[in-house]
Amino acid sequence: MRIHVQNDPHDRPFGITPEQWQAAAARAPDVGQDHVVSYGRTPEEFAAALAEAEILVIAVSELAGRFPMAAPRLKVIFCTSAGVDKLAPFDWLPPGVALLNNRGVHAAKAGEFGIMAVLMLAARMPELIAAQRAERWQKLHSGSVRGRRLTVVGLGSLGGAAATQAAHFGIEVTGVRTRPSPHPACTRVIAVDDLDSVLPDSEFLLLACPLTEATRNLMDRRRLSLLPEGAGVVNIGRGPLLDQEAICDLLDAGKLGGAVLDVFTPEPVPPGHRLWTTKNLVMTPHVSADDVATYNPLSLDLLFINLRAMKEGKPLPNQVDPQRGY
Amino acid sequence: MRIHVQNDPHDRPFGITPEQWQAAAARAPDVGQDHVVSYGRTPEEFAAALAEAEILVIAVSELAGRFPMAAPRLKVIFCTSAGVDKLAPFDWLPPGVALLNNRGVHAAKAGEFGIMAVLMLAARMPELIAAQRAERWQKLHSGSVRGRRLTVVGLGSLGGAAATQAAHFGIEVTGVRTRPSPHPACTRVIAVDDLDSVLPDSEFLLLACPLTEATRNLMDRRRLSLLPEGAGVVNIGRGPLLDQEAICDLLDAGKLGGAVLDVFTPEPVPPGHRLWTTKNLVMTPHVSADDVATYNPLSLDLLFINLRAMKEGKPLPNQVDPQRGY
Repeated sequence: MRIHVQNDPHDRPFGITPEQWQAAAARAPDVGQDHVVSYGRTPEEFAAALAEAEILVIAVSELAGRFPMAAPRLKVIFCTSAGVDKLAPFDWLPPGVALLNNRGVHAAKAGEFGIMAVLMLAARMPELIAAQRAERWQKLHSGSVRGRRLTVVGLGSLGGAAATQAAHFGIEVTGVRTRPSPHPACTRVIAVDDLDSVLPDSEFLLLACPLTEATRNLMDRRRLSLLPEGAGVVNIGRGPLLDQEAICDLLDAGKLGGAVLDVFTPEPVPPGHRLWTTKNLVMTPHVSADDVATYNPLSLDLLFINLRAMKEGKPLPNQVDPQRGY
Repeated sequence: MRIHVQNDPHDRPFGITPEQWQAAAARAPDVGQDHVVSYGRTPEEFAAALAEAEILVIAVSELAGRFPMAAPRLKVIFCTSAGVDKLAPFDWLPPGVALLNNRGVHAAKAGEFGIMAVLMLAARMPELIAAQRAERWQKLHSGSVRGRRLTVVGLGSLGGAAATQAAHFGIEVTGVRTRPSPHPACTRVIAVDDLDSVLPDSEFLLLACPLTEATRNLMDRRRLSLLPEGAGVVNIGRGPLLDQEAICDLLDAGKLGGAVLDVFTPEPVPPGHRLWTTKNLVMTPHVSADDVATYNPLSLDLLFINLRAMKEGKPLPNQVDPQRGY
């Protein structure tokens, strides 16, 4: 097949190289051979390649706003990103073209980041970091996380990995998903419609769901205020999942004990924004789930898994449902 | 038996209460009953109680410098601390009196702190915390910890718990102990005499051994310089295990990637000390292993385990060997 890899001209560390492609193709010999692969970075290279390409490999940031355009032979767009919210609504998607994301690639790193964030909140690291900055020796004791209560919103690859790590530490995990089917790491799973009922008992809350019209502002000021005094919040999903002004207010007022946020509105967060100096807030610049060393190899392995499914006439495991938005 | 509990007059959160004693005694009915228990906070209460006490329960900070003194019936001193380095040399210990520590109590919390620290170093949190302080959006990517190499010095309850957590994350753990007997969480265990040989491959180093004459300044400037460029160091043992000036120099020069230190020389670290502003250093005020909620219950449970061993004529599991110093 004709495959075009369009790399971000600016985001060099995440560009897919011919060497990475060949290595991944060699790991999937049944579906990795006999392709003609082109690589581009400029709009001109993109337009030229789309005249022939059957499969397009591209990051969401590069794909947004590219369509409609002439792509007569295109069958598959493989986004090397998990969150495709920037592409919604999906009316630009040419009929018959399957849109795939790379959900699953981020699981290991996101699980590690998620439990690190919960352990940091449990150990009162936001306060200890502030004390260090003030050159103040302030013994702030804390307990083990065993038996404490964490609510994870979204049990996809990110939330599922975080929940699994938390369960390993003996944390009681409540999962929240659209339809409340069980999850092995969760002592219970509730429907998102019942979220209000568990928030008052959630010592820790971790957001890991996709951003859709249904989840935008899910943790609004009212819901954030339902969390118990001293609760800790982690967001590894998308910034607009929560009311950012409200969480800053609750942190500054000491109602929430701390937060570890990796995603924001807007990104990058500009200098001078109140986020930077909000009390007991630890910020990371949208890096919680990206592992430079494994990102492209795992993404390409996923692509070949989907090409194998296509060859066998099976459903594509990473296909995005434009109605759901993920 | 006559048991005296001497509480620290200043360290209220860790004082043992009669309610805690009674609860622990009820959990160990075979050895918890028929004792006469007294409680004190002042030197006068201490001296008066020691005229009769057979068992003394006391924190190391309270015990240091108290002996020699008249304690004619004393059989056991139970220190509600794991590190007894402040009591060395042990020539003050009256003949025939067993000195016990509470090793084991700190394991759960220390294991959580240890893996949190390693995850923070792997995720480049020291740099990210500095970037946040500078209001700078700086994408610093990092990888999963799976397959990375951690060396844990000391495989007692603290180091063993940290090694076990690290192994759960797929980290390759090298253990270092006095005698290199195997440990289930370690892919290999070496003798402390061979430490130099593993340091150049140690991406992360975690110190969790007791402070003795053999371990004082174990990580001197020469050994710290054997660590690879960008390595991360965690110390949950005692400050004097490492050359503090040397680690500050190596961090400030960017030779080490980061450090999470919980113990220092001296403690408290005074304002204005260079530690507070050393590059990529995260400091916590000697709280890594203390869990207020479980500390006293677990300590008292340990005491009763030792009283049971004494009753049965068995070796006391928590007895300190004055020769080894732990």
